[in-house]
Amino acid sequence: INQLAIAWTTNAPLTIEKVEVDPPKAGEVRIKIISSGICDTNKHILEGKDKVPFPAIWGHEGAGTVESIGEGVTRDKVLMFPLPECRECISISLTFFHPICFHWYNGTSRFTCRGRKIYHLYGTSTFTEYTVVHEIAVGKIDDDAPMDTVCILSCEVPTGFGAVFNIAKVRMFTPGSTCVVFGLGGIGSAVVMACKASGASRIIGVDIKEEKFPRARTLGVTDCLNPQKLKKPVQEVVVEMTGKGADFAFEAIGLIDTMVATLESCHPSYGVGVIIGLAPTNSQLIFDPMLLLSGRTLKGGALGNYKTRSCIPKMVTDYLQKKINLDPLITHTLPFESINKAFELLQEKAL
Amino acid sequence: INQLAIAWTTNAPLTIEKVEVDPPKAGEVRIKIISSGICDTNKHILEGKDKVPFPAIWGHEGAGTVESIGEGVTRDKVLMFPLPECRECISISLTFFHPICFHWYNGTSRFTCRGRKIYHLYGTSTFTEYTVVHEIAVGKIDDDAPMDTVCILSCEVPTGFGAVFNIAKVRMFTPGSTCVVFGLGGIGSAVVMACKASGASRIIGVDIKEEKFPRARTLGVTDCLNPQKLKKPVQEVVVEMTGKGADFAFEAIGLIDTMVATLESCHPSYGVGVIIGLAPTNSQLIFDPMLLLSGRTLKGGALGNYKTRSCIPKMVTDYLQKKINLDPLITHTLPFESINKAFELLQEKAL
Repeated sequence: INQLAIAWTTNAPLTIEKVEVDPPKAGEVRIKIISSGICDTNKHILEGKDKVPFPAIWGHEGAGTVESIGEGVTRDKVLMFPLPECRECISISLTFFHPICFHWYNGTSRFTCRGRKIYHLYGTSTFTEYTVVHEIAVGKIDDDAPMDTVCILSCEVPTGFGAVFNIAKVRMFTPGSTCVVFGLGGIGSAVVMACKASGASRIIGVDIKEEKFPRARTLGVTDCLNPQKLKKPVQEVVVEMTGKGADFAFEAIGLIDTMVATLESCHPSYGVGVIIGLAPTNSQLIFDPMLLLSGRTLKGGALGNYKTRSCIPKMVTDYLQKKINLDPLITHTLPFESINKAFELLQEKAL
Repeated sequence: INQLAIAWTTNAPLTIEKVEVDPPKAGEVRIKIISSGICDTNKHILEGKDKVPFPAIWGHEGAGTVESIGEGVTRDKVLMFPLPECRECISISLTFFHPICFHWYNGTSRFTCRGRKIYHLYGTSTFTEYTVVHEIAVGKIDDDAPMDTVCILSCEVPTGFGAVFNIAKVRMFTPGSTCVVFGLGGIGSAVVMACKASGASRIIGVDIKEEKFPRARTLGVTDCLNPQKLKKPVQEVVVEMTGKGADFAFEAIGLIDTMVATLESCHPSYGVGVIIGLAPTNSQLIFDPMLLLSGRTLKGGALGNYKTRSCIPKMVTDYLQKKINLDPLITHTLPFESINKAFELLQEKAL
């Protein structure tokens, strides 16, 4: 018996229910969730923009302890990952990074409520006391990890860090590279931190919610732009501010328009645009290929192209050793029962 | 007095006329053209797909000798480049490659016919006995260079080579990388040669004109596909042939549909798509951003991102020293008077 938050349909509050969680099958682990993150992707799903099967338990960032593995039981602390790492796929073995493991979630479920199967989200589901995930999507973390902070290492923080370190590969030009970050939420903030760590001398932050600007400045943003207060398109302003365009631009929102603005903000000869925001299902990116012909690059990646199990637990250790600081990224901590309040807070902050 | 081929309007043969060519102004060079290449971009301009000002002298690949520099005269052999290298632009100085020099052609002309100014094409114009270009768009080449072959080093060959060496940076995976080349014309053939030289173990060539396949195979293509003879979209066939997609894919045609097919042909986690074909003016590339989110990269470049003056004359030397072989790329050699016959041949070969 497990208390969890079921999403029965779009555009309605989640309902907290008590349901059966099946025991783990071969290769699976049942996990007691201690802390879960919540991000805009969940909001987009709530709004019906990102299509997923219903009814479902959402949440794809979670820290917990292993409750059972087949017959065995441990109390290991773990993170769950929305992208598994099977260590067999050719895309995993050939390259150091790159997380797309084709041993993907198989669509089965270990949740049942009122006789109905309830779907998992991205093979995880963390808005619940207990969940069952495949062992290839779980990484053991340090015993002294504070779960209410490290849970955002399941997805948000590696997505931002990896966009800079693994995908864009931001490097120090003389006299320092220029980066633009569209969206200053959790992922965008992680992007800013990584740009700063990569030696960027100028980081332009773009958001329509100016209350995010003070935190952005403390993390490394040098110039804040609110597109709603500008007389011309933000990409034109960025090009003017930077001479011909930024060295690197990041889209951390998930809107088609800002994805094109990201590309247009880049230097025509060598600018690199990186898309990490998840666009609504079946969206179409539309732009003139001349934007690429001059020399620009457009890339994307999921979960920062990290090998999840191999790389992310080390970030927990880095946090404990104060090599990275996640504390500014924790804006609110709420009890599980307030899950719908969390969605409301997300809505208020949203672009 | 100069004999040249004027394009007065789209979709009409060029007319050969005798006109005045002004002497070179400060920083300019008047060149006697010995040999000129002709490529599909000129055909697209003829068809009105690529917008350029009319009337104009076309041709942007040319080998010639310097006829006059202000008052001085030399007989140096030179190549003209449709992209200059000023050695001042930040995009030139900061990075080893990247050709977009912002000291671009200024729109003035040194041609007059029947009292009208006749435009240059891309700052060059090679379908003429004499042309005037800026010295930053000219590179001195070896005295013993055969002009009727090396003229294609002005644009076509570096565009193909650079797409592989500088833009995609094709590298040898074990057991060898897989490349797909859309379009087996001059540029596509140069791409094939460079893929082969980069250690690609499989090179899939795509074209609707099967008479190009024998040459393609001699250059390194291992599998030839004619999309018109396939039961499903060519990108699906490529994905099936390669497991999950090619490591590198190149678009050397200039069609929006094949640009999207190029991206879709790439491996979802690490595939790199490179666009080098020039799409019709104001085209829109349209695709689902999820194609990038999984980890793909889409890049483009002009003239292979080579620094034209610095890098291309060395290729002439490489050809003379038999380090590269351009001979298979010369399909026809015609006298200047047969310029319209050259366009007809291009039409017959075209996709």
